[in-house]
Amino acid sequence: MSYFRPNIDQMKGYVPGEQPRESEVIKLNTNENAYPPSPRVFEAIQRALTKQLRRYPDPLATEFRQAAAEVLRVSPDSIIACNGSDEALTLLTRACVEPSGLMVSPTPSYPLYENLAEIQGCRFEHRPFDEGGRLPRGLTRGAALTLVPNPNSPTGTFAPPEELLAHAEEATGLLVSDEAYADFALGHCLPLIEKCERLVVTRSFSKGYSLAGLRFGFLVAQPTIVRTLLKLKDSYNVDALAIAAATAAIRDQEYFLGNVKKILATRKRLASGLEDLGFQATPSSANFVWATRSTPLEPIYQELKRRGILIRFLRYPGFGEGLRVTVGTDAEIDRLLSELKSIV
Amino acid sequence: MSYFRPNIDQMKGYVPGEQPRESEVIKLNTNENAYPPSPRVFEAIQRALTKQLRRYPDPLATEFRQAAAEVLRVSPDSIIACNGSDEALTLLTRACVEPSGLMVSPTPSYPLYENLAEIQGCRFEHRPFDEGGRLPRGLTRGAALTLVPNPNSPTGTFAPPEELLAHAEEATGLLVSDEAYADFALGHCLPLIEKCERLVVTRSFSKGYSLAGLRFGFLVAQPTIVRTLLKLKDSYNVDALAIAAATAAIRDQEYFLGNVKKILATRKRLASGLEDLGFQATPSSANFVWATRSTPLEPIYQELKRRGILIRFLRYPGFGEGLRVTVGTDAEIDRLLSELKSIV
Repeated sequence: MSYFRPNIDQMKGYVPGEQPRESEVIKLNTNENAYPPSPRVFEAIQRALTKQLRRYPDPLATEFRQAAAEVLRVSPDSIIACNGSDEALTLLTRACVEPSGLMVSPTPSYPLYENLAEIQGCRFEHRPFDEGGRLPRGLTRGAALTLVPNPNSPTGTFAPPEELLAHAEEATGLLVSDEAYADFALGHCLPLIEKCERLVVTRSFSKGYSLAGLRFGFLVAQPTIVRTLLKLKDSYNVDALAIAAATAAIRDQEYFLGNVKKILATRKRLASGLEDLGFQATPSSANFVWATRSTPLEPIYQELKRRGILIRFLRYPGFGEGLRVTVGTDAEIDRLLSELKSIV
Repeated sequence: MSYFRPNIDQMKGYVPGEQPRESEVIKLNTNENAYPPSPRVFEAIQRALTKQLRRYPDPLATEFRQAAAEVLRVSPDSIIACNGSDEALTLLTRACVEPSGLMVSPTPSYPLYENLAEIQGCRFEHRPFDEGGRLPRGLTRGAALTLVPNPNSPTGTFAPPEELLAHAEEATGLLVSDEAYADFALGHCLPLIEKCERLVVTRSFSKGYSLAGLRFGFLVAQPTIVRTLLKLKDSYNVDALAIAAATAAIRDQEYFLGNVKKILATRKRLASGLEDLGFQATPSSANFVWATRSTPLEPIYQELKRRGILIRFLRYPGFGEGLRVTVGTDAEIDRLLSELKSIV
């Protein structure tokens, strides 16, 4: 007999990208930032590293909320700090979706969404992008919660924020613009939140702000939505050092924008290098590039791995397969392209 | 109309103890450790504070699992590192309890349990301790999940581990020994886990190890149970600095045991001081003391607060009210007792 719910016994569990502990691997598989966090982050952590670590952190991360509100021009009470944006997605699922309810996501996109539905024990539907790669009509139909990564992963494509707003306006449940990669795109949904209470944005510090190791993300929605979601979160969901680090990181926009600029330049170089080698590189609004090819891709992934370069090989039913390559430093991308040249 | 499940709209949300940001307050309300973390913790965080913060942490916290396994004499694959032990309780609830299912806890105990049931949308029953203050017969009857804080909060009482094992053996679902305060008690359930797969232990680093600010806890159960629960956790639920800190903390048993010893000595002084002032102090196995009195207690709490000393005033239906006082330093407890003397 089992002590678990049938949906839990049946589910496989989400498998994240490999995290090798050896540091000599060129790691282009989980979309970490190519550059370290801002020096201000290290200074802020040093200041927070006191005997007061014995004390609980601020449950609302007030200091971060204020800094983020100023930088992003939203109200502090529209923000919830989370232990990574994955925690925000978990809170939304638990808050919104009944066991008989429906969660929806365009496909192909972030496989974690389906996993969250499996844990909740609710229904889940993939709704394919249309032939032009746009969000499908009737995306939110019948859904208690619709999750849209924008920019999308694995493709790196970007839907105009107004399109997401239009889908939120016709929704009956919440629509989440999962903006983990928005730091590398030309737009985002934050200015639209005040127009529709069903529109929610989630953000991560793991990509643009180089803080994957610290687990920090946040959610933005109208304050009435935030007040309800706050009831679900663990009292102390983000730690004192992560709050200090994220606050310093978002305040240092100069460093952040400098990194983003470098990554966008290298992304261009990566995409054209892949095209030169006979791949089709989807135009990307994120810090990775999705590459396809008429010949099998898994052997290329395997051979690169053998040579100490880790990228992601992904296959989606009804969509096909591809290689997702994180935009590393110029040196890493040059090495990747040179190895690829001798493989393909 | 609401975008949330009815159970979410109806729930009030757990209210944690106050966390004033002013440092001049004597804070004896949320059971933080009276002493700072081990110097080894700060060294370990310094070593982990590198450019590699841009990388995701180890999803399984392998380094911590190994250290904890050695110190606690359990198998590494019986351990799950969590973002505070509250996260472990959340995972267990989501994994085990169907919407039609039942969660049970003895009462009075940790109010968060009922909150977790409300979020899950399942049934919850308080089952009162018997007249001798022991766990009631039939504690686990019909329950998919039974949560027992041991030592208990707010009373600080301790049930012999064999009693918990006996309840787990007659249970049909899992029984959790929530050992957030076990560092201050004379026993615990870890050696009994191999005897019953329904027995699960959760632990915190917020109390005995002085790391409330860092959010780290863990769960111990038989590996088959652990494998299922791992499917539910966020991929990167604990951050790289917390893993480094917790690993260093648990390795420094000398420092840890020294702090525990000091706290037990002060606990004795606090309890007898309260008795001298006409309170009934329940014998405590935790780092706090539960005090009752025949006269109203809320005015005492309020007056102490006015004088810059924060303790907890708690009231439980069918059980009564009391003051829960964290064991601070000797100086803090002396100050508390001297203020109390002039109040009562």
